[in-house]
Order: sequence, then structure tokens, then C-alpha cells
Amino acid sequence: MSTIALDAMGGDNGVAAAVRAAAAVSLAQDTGVLLVGDRAAIDAELRRTRYDASYLSIHHASQAIGMAESPRAALQAKPDASLLVGARLVAEGAADGLVSAGNTGAAILACATYFKTIPGVPRTALAAVIPTERRRGPHDDPFSLILDVGATLDASADALVAFAHMGSAYASRISRNARPRVALLSNGEEAHKGPPAVVEAHRRLAADARINFIGNVEGVDLPRGTADVVVTSGFTGNVVLKMIEGISDTVMDMARAANRSRLAWKLGLYMLRGGILHLRNVTDWQQYGGAPILGFDHPFIKAHGRSSDRAIQNAIKVAAKAARSNLCAEIASTLAGKGGLTG
Amino acid sequence: MSTIALDAMGGDNGVAAAVRAAAAVSLAQDTGVLLVGDRAAIDAELRRTRYDASYLSIHHASQAIGMAESPRAALQAKPDASLLVGARLVAEGAADGLVSAGNTGAAILACATYFKTIPGVPRTALAAVIPTERRRGPHDDPFSLILDVGATLDASADALVAFAHMGSAYASRISRNARPRVALLSNGEEAHKGPPAVVEAHRRLAADARINFIGNVEGVDLPRGTADVVVTSGFTGNVVLKMIEGISDTVMDMARAANRSRLAWKLGLYMLRGGILHLRNVTDWQQYGGAPILGFDHPFIKAHGRSSDRAIQNAIKVAAKAARSNLCAEIASTLAGKGGLTG
Repeated sequence: MSTIALDAMGGDNGVAAAVRAAAAVSLAQDTGVLLVGDRAAIDAELRRTRYDASYLSIHHASQAIGMAESPRAALQAKPDASLLVGARLVAEGAADGLVSAGNTGAAILACATYFKTIPGVPRTALAAVIPTERRRGPHDDPFSLILDVGATLDASADALVAFAHMGSAYASRISRNARPRVALLSNGEEAHKGPPAVVEAHRRLAADARINFIGNVEGVDLPRGTADVVVTSGFTGNVVLKMIEGISDTVMDMARAANRSRLAWKLGLYMLRGGILHLRNVTDWQQYGGAPILGFDHPFIKAHGRSSDRAIQNAIKVAAKAARSNLCAEIASTLAGKGGLTG
Repeated sequence: MSTIALDAMGGDNGVAAAVRAAAAVSLAQDTGVLLVGDRAAIDAELRRTRYDASYLSIHHASQAIGMAESPRAALQAKPDASLLVGARLVAEGAADGLVSAGNTGAAILACATYFKTIPGVPRTALAAVIPTERRRGPHDDPFSLILDVGATLDASADALVAFAHMGSAYASRISRNARPRVALLSNGEEAHKGPPAVVEAHRRLAADARINFIGNVEGVDLPRGTADVVVTSGFTGNVVLKMIEGISDTVMDMARAANRSRLAWKLGLYMLRGGILHLRNVTDWQQYGGAPILGFDHPFIKAHGRSSDRAIQNAIKVAAKAARSNLCAEIASTLAGKGGLTG
């Protein structure tokens, strides 16, 4: 059985959402959860919910990092923060992976403090799922994975190639898609299109039989879902991800405005409510399972700050799946036998 | 009166759309149009439409460049191509600006062949309009301008600063927005966020009183329309622009699928048809006025390949407005008095 450490103090919905998520996971009796945070607050929540004590334990941590705190300063000021303690427990072997809905920057730094970067990984990557028209996998997921959406403002060819391998390994394990289609995001489909690092990464990936590389995709392919895994620098990935967030906000605003403005539109929206709900589920994609940080020797899943208990539950399941399938070891062995990586 | 040279052979709708657009403009009797292309084909179309001969003339060009031709090879092989001849006529003073709905790459090269780059412009920029939630200007335009969406894969700070000035000058003249809000696209609002070129451009623009610089915007701000002019490298601009194209295609596909699938949805869509038509107009934003190439000493407006005659007509009006308002001279004088540009 794998055990996942859960930062019980992170996220907009606080300790209540984390504890309810952990309790629900414990009842399924296939994954252990180690709640890390204020024991009194956790106990108080646990008294209100049903759980299986043999699949749930608590590790007390006296401090917590707020969503808006400056990551570096917060970690220095709070050595007993639940996030830091959770990362340490995983590094020490007390749990097999970490989940947090808290401060993203602090989470990355906490991992960097206690986890090791896998040899051959020039930069760790924060991945995210984006909604797509095409559905994929056994659950008909309307998502593809994009990485990096984190800190690599200007990714080298080495970094892009490593992102491609890490994203492919993650998608094949988590989405049960044996040969995920991997693509580089560029300003044209041709192999010579893009900045030098993209052109060089294209050349190497095209020669790499271990990966199902389909070449470059363009912006137009992102909503279509042409690729299962889209590889780009953190700068472009960040712009893309936030743009989708903005568009889904705008669509919801327009629907609300239409609802107020005309009776016919109000009726029309009522009749379309099934479709609109579907759209809202798709655009509320952040609720699905969370975003992995790839490149460390332990799995870490960042649940969205707005995560409900159900979303945190999904993130725990994803982390457990990553741990059970030896995702990190697989990435390490792929990058160690690196025929295609430096050629 | 200003006269605009129109490449009569470019665009998916061919010489018919170009001639109808030119004829409609001539009837307004405030702008002259110089149709450049195959005289026999133009004459044949002119016989089918009403026009004012004192505002319309023809310059024969025996060759035409196809939409899918390789730009450089096409220009070399076809010295009498309508696009090249049009650019030459403008450079020689026979017309005050150029419009084409043809091959974008060939159009940029044709301008580069005959036009001069304005001193102080490190790179010319292709700009585009993107649809936004916020409306602006006397016509309630739901658009903002983004540049570069062209060839600068990795824009220097100098290039970004020049883009900001050119975009601001264009928006203030064409949208009649006296103090357009100009922003840099980055991965965070803070001045230190982004690659070095963005951080340096931010520092210079913040100190530049000639421009209404509102700082960095993020991806989420693009559909909101936080800025009137969004400045970025051609690589990111290309991804953003094509992504919007993909999303609008996806929304239309989903609406079509909903229309087929359930009676209630069909009825709902029928009742929402006004709103959906509005949405289609917004997402078919390429129809509006075309995309300027900024940084040359003459105005060039690239109409979308799919342009109808009405869209080409709009592009001609925009080119005439740019010519009348001395856009290029204004950019030159702003960049010449370049207190803020290199400081």
C-alpha cells in the first residue's frame, strides 16, 4: 500500500477540505493518508466525519504558510510549516508522495529543499492539464498535459527534451495512455520553426524512438487536443494556461450577462443548461487531479488553491498512482539511458 | 485625398472580392484606390459592379503570388507580381499605402524590398487584433491590439520598446483612443517578472512619459481586454493568436454538435441565436480591418486571407486613415526623440 502525505493547512478551503478528502480516501482502503498540520484542528474536523483509522494518520506541524506569503521568506521563517514537514517526511520514507493545495512557490521550494533532482533533469517542471475538444483515454478525458508552466522562462533544448520525457512518462502512467502523443509548441509545424532551443529539441526528439513525438504543434492545436503532452518553456506555458483561465471566466461572464438581458436568452440558456454545465466542468479543469511537479525523486501533486475536498481526493489518488507505478524511477531510468538526450 | 494601392490578386476570394471592395470605396468619394493586378480580370469584374472612375484606377501586373507559395522563392520568380508592384508604386509615391489579402510572408518581404525601415526600429512588427470582453472607443470595439505576431522569435528590449511605441501610435490613430493603455505580456504583474528583455523593456517604458504604460499583463488579461495594446515577442504572439483561433473554432464545433444532439439544445441555441451571432462576429475578428505591419515608412495593412469584400473595404479605410494621420511620420518622430528608448 502506498501512503501519501497531505499538507492539511494549504488551500483556500483550509483544513476542513483536506481532512474530508483524507477521510474519503481512507474509506476506500487502498491508500494511506498522512495528514500533516495542526493536530488539534485536524482532530476537530475528524470528529465530524467518517474515516478508517487504519488508513489515516496525523503528523503534527505547528506552522502553516499562507497562500499570499512570499515563498522564500515564509519557508525561512517557518521551519515547522506543514508543507516543509510533509516534504521531509516523504524524503525520509514515511510517505511515498506529497499533495498540497497551498502556496505553489512555497511547495516547489519545499520539494527542492528535501527532494533530490533526478540526474539528467536540467530543470524540474510544473505541469498542468488544459481542456481540449478531443477526448482521450479510458475515461474520455477532455484534457492534455502542458509543461512547463513554472519557472523556466527560457528553456534550453536539454530542458525541453527532459520535459518531453517526463511528460510522456506521467501521461502514460496517470492517463493509462500507453503511447501519449508528445509535441513541441512552436510558431509553425515545420521542424525549422521556432527559437533555436525548440529547433534543436525537435531534432533530438524526432530521432528518439522511446517517445511518440508528433512534431511541432501551434496555438490552434491546444484547444483541439492534437497532442496529449505539449512541451514549452515556462513563460509561454504560463501565458497559455492563464489565457484559458481568462477565456473561461469571460464565457461565464457573458452567459451571466445574457441571462440577465433578454427573456429569450434566459430561456435559451435554461434549455442549454446541460451543455453549459458540461462547459463549466471542462473550464473548471483545475479541479481535476492537480498539477504534478516533475523531475524530483518523489512525486508531488499540487492541487489548485480553490480545490474542494473532492479535488484534493483526486490529487491524492493521482499521487498514489504515481507512487505505485514508480513514475520517478521510470523517469530516472529513461534519462539515464539517454541515447537521444544529448545526441 | 489619399490613395491606397490594393493587391487585386491576393486572398482566398480572389480578384472579385478585391474589385468589389475597391468599387465600394470609390463610391464614398473620399479615398482613391489603385488596383494592382491583371487588367483583363479586373476589367471583367468592374463591368459587373458600380464604381466611381475618378476614385479608381488600375495598374497592370502580369503575375500573382499564391497563398501557399514559399514567399522568398515566389518573389524571386515573379518580379511582376501584383504584391511587389503594389509595394513599388507606394514607395515611388503613386499611392499612400498598401493593402493585400494575400500571402503574409510574401507581403512582408515585398514591403522590405521597397519600403524603408524607420530609423530606431530594430524590427518591424506584424500586429493583430484580438477579441476582448471589454469594449473600447467610439464604436465600442471589443478588440485590443497585440504585437508582434510576426517574425521576432526572441524580441530584444529595444524591439519591445519600439513595438510599444508603434502599437500606441497605431491604436491612437486608428481607434481614436488618445491614450491607449499599453502593456507588456509576461508571466506575472510585478516589474521583475519575465525574461531579461521583458524586465528591461518594463524598466524603460515605466520611465517613458510619452506612453500610457500600465505595466505587465498576464494571459488572463488578454480576453478581459485589460490593455489596449499588448506587447510581446512574435513567438508568444503567434501562439496566443492561433490559440484564440482554435478556441473560436472549438466553440463553433461544440455549438454545431449541440444543435444536432438534442431537441432542447436545438431550441436553446435557436433562442440564443442573437448572442451566438454576436459571438461569431467577435470570434470572426479577423474580418475587422486587417493587421498592420508597423515600422516601415509607408502603411501596409494585411487583410486576412479569408477576407470578404467588406473586410477588404475596411482594410482600405484603415490604410487610408493611417496615411491621412501620418502614422509613419509620427512613429519616426517618436523614435527619433528617443529619450526613453535607450535610457
